[in-house]
Amino acid sequence: MPNGDVYPDLDKESLELHEKNRGKIEIKCKIPLETKWDLSRAYTPGVAAVCRAIKNDPELAYKYTLKANTIAIVTDGTAVLGLGDIGPSAAIPVMEGKAALFKRFAGIDAFPICFEKSANIASEIRNIASVFGGINLEDIAAPRCFEIEEALQDLGIPVMHDDQHGTAIAVLAGLLNACRVTGKEFEDLKIVVSGAGAAGYAVSRLLRCIGYNRDICTSVKEMIVCDRQGIIHRQRRGLYNNKYKFILADETNHTGREGTLPDALEGADVFVGVSAPGILTGDMIRLMNDDPIVFAMANPVPEIMPDEAKRAGAAIVATGRSDFANQINNALVFPGVFRGALDAHATKISDEMKIAAAHALANYVRRPTREHIIPRVLDREVTISIAEAVWASAVKWGYARRV
Amino acid sequence: MPNGDVYPDLDKESLELHEKNRGKIEIKCKIPLETKWDLSRAYTPGVAAVCRAIKNDPELAYKYTLKANTIAIVTDGTAVLGLGDIGPSAAIPVMEGKAALFKRFAGIDAFPICFEKSANIASEIRNIASVFGGINLEDIAAPRCFEIEEALQDLGIPVMHDDQHGTAIAVLAGLLNACRVTGKEFEDLKIVVSGAGAAGYAVSRLLRCIGYNRDICTSVKEMIVCDRQGIIHRQRRGLYNNKYKFILADETNHTGREGTLPDALEGADVFVGVSAPGILTGDMIRLMNDDPIVFAMANPVPEIMPDEAKRAGAAIVATGRSDFANQINNALVFPGVFRGALDAHATKISDEMKIAAAHALANYVRRPTREHIIPRVLDREVTISIAEAVWASAVKWGYARRV
Repeated sequence: MPNGDVYPDLDKESLELHEKNRGKIEIKCKIPLETKWDLSRAYTPGVAAVCRAIKNDPELAYKYTLKANTIAIVTDGTAVLGLGDIGPSAAIPVMEGKAALFKRFAGIDAFPICFEKSANIASEIRNIASVFGGINLEDIAAPRCFEIEEALQDLGIPVMHDDQHGTAIAVLAGLLNACRVTGKEFEDLKIVVSGAGAAGYAVSRLLRCIGYNRDICTSVKEMIVCDRQGIIHRQRRGLYNNKYKFILADETNHTGREGTLPDALEGADVFVGVSAPGILTGDMIRLMNDDPIVFAMANPVPEIMPDEAKRAGAAIVATGRSDFANQINNALVFPGVFRGALDAHATKISDEMKIAAAHALANYVRRPTREHIIPRVLDREVTISIAEAVWASAVKWGYARRV
Repeated sequence: MPNGDVYPDLDKESLELHEKNRGKIEIKCKIPLETKWDLSRAYTPGVAAVCRAIKNDPELAYKYTLKANTIAIVTDGTAVLGLGDIGPSAAIPVMEGKAALFKRFAGIDAFPICFEKSANIASEIRNIASVFGGINLEDIAAPRCFEIEEALQDLGIPVMHDDQHGTAIAVLAGLLNACRVTGKEFEDLKIVVSGAGAAGYAVSRLLRCIGYNRDICTSVKEMIVCDRQGIIHRQRRGLYNNKYKFILADETNHTGREGTLPDALEGADVFVGVSAPGILTGDMIRLMNDDPIVFAMANPVPEIMPDEAKRAGAAIVATGRSDFANQINNALVFPGVFRGALDAHATKISDEMKIAAAHALANYVRRPTREHIIPRVLDREVTISIAEAVWASAVKWGYARRV
């Protein structure tokens, strides 16, 4: 087994691992099935009593079936890793990997549901939701991911698009600790978000905490979002074609700034990149306020390499990569968020619950430093902290069925 | 643990078992996830190589993912056990039980997909089929079960409604051995099937082997099907309202008999009941040929109790119950049929494969007797015999992708 973070033959080793195991997850039977008595209790005729009980009270599915601990990982394979629209079959390995992580880090049973592109995903998920205690949307291209998530918020179980909110929660946690390290006040921050896809949209909305200030009691001072065309502002042409960019224009950039990324960065405290490799330069960082905070999370090549960002004066640099300090990765977040939501039999994952998750993740780092604003991936205790916070928030704000 | 077949407190014990375990199946992660290296191979970035491989050749999903060993157990909860239309949530315990049996007897990973009644099941299964190597339809009311199964035969993976074909295969196996015991010739049999629901339809069609005489090289001499209204014949009113009864009228009862069950039974060799409790009497058996064969499989109360059937002269009696001799149960069949089909990466489960399964099941009983025409449920070796026969048949008749 190689050391360090650069693995020769990774592709070959990965293919071998998958071939040898024929994938990464399997079904395990958790009851005995050796005798007629076992069969009578688990299957006919005894199972009829369980069916009748659930028929009379559907909530009992949480008590008597896999539902309480099971989620669907739902994709259509349109935005998988950096590979783009590769379709449902080619997306299976990622969904299985996610299911493996859910089990390993949170004890959650997750099963991949990979839709053809032509499917009406929202209504078809609704039709198979009875088995699941939650739905994790995954690797679905914008704006479809927004529409599906929105359409399913009344489903009665948590439905969360991880690429959006997992990332947003991790970014919020990182920023809270970056403030602790640099002495900046969260509510004074001027933030530039580069990228208005799934992650950019969710990061922008969570950091603004629009209408949901209950737990955080504040919002950042100023936020500007840039996409490929530059700064999103209300007068920009074509905004009405995209509901979600229109929302961003409405909710951010209240000073009405126009132009490109450097124009946005002038006087900013924070750069959050969920966009494209290499688009941030040292010169741009030099336009920012003192002690600039740079989260360059494009994968696998960030918006700027950490050493270059530091040379340009960045006080804190985070990326999405495991081979640099401060890896901001949604793998820190999703196991705990769903664990807490499932334990509460939650009806949804609300903004309060997301904010509680971010605080728990930030506070898990006792003494944050420039090189350590966020816990390491693979630390299972993180999941427990987040789960407890999410559960408590669900109870507090009325999203829990079980208290 | 109680002995015998009558269990006091079975309902209570069954509820307790389900509550304690929160259902019967869970997801197991079958790869290590302890180190960064593990994570890199199983998830990002290594998994991208696997995704790309499948994108280039979708068949590789069988090699690199759970697909090769995974089936969906699909229901809408409209015909669950004897409970009727109890809906998708209340059906979960039966689907989980089935998944547990699949794992226990055939090592197959099966996951429940429970549809709302309003779903367009055929098209919605098609939209999520990429993850699965096969589809087991379960507890769906007729005629919907026929329509869904028919509509999905071009899906490229086996789609089988177990309540139909599992039962039909077990009945055919039992009949083959009943002939060995009584000395009757299969092709001379005059058979009456009571019940034209899912099981009755499939039994009738398989025993007729219509157009698929390749492996069995014969068909029974005469078959008459009765439903609640009596004998199905071509002149009967209302047949045109039900495509499947029309097919039965067309394919059976070539002598044009009319009337009720006793009229059908006159001179018959075999009664196959998949209908309702107590509808067969000793007097009706006395109308049959010498050495009558009685399969009374209504559950839990058969069409006639075995002792009464024997008093009336039945040479062989079988039921669906584990507390009598000769239990004809689809649990003998479905694990092996799907095991063989999955091992062949089969495109469907053809009639040849079903007939091969029935022969394997019958031949598993070396020396059949009146009290032992069919193997016992819970015998795992049966699965292996059936799987081998089904695999070989798939290869022989061109339904195997993998030889």
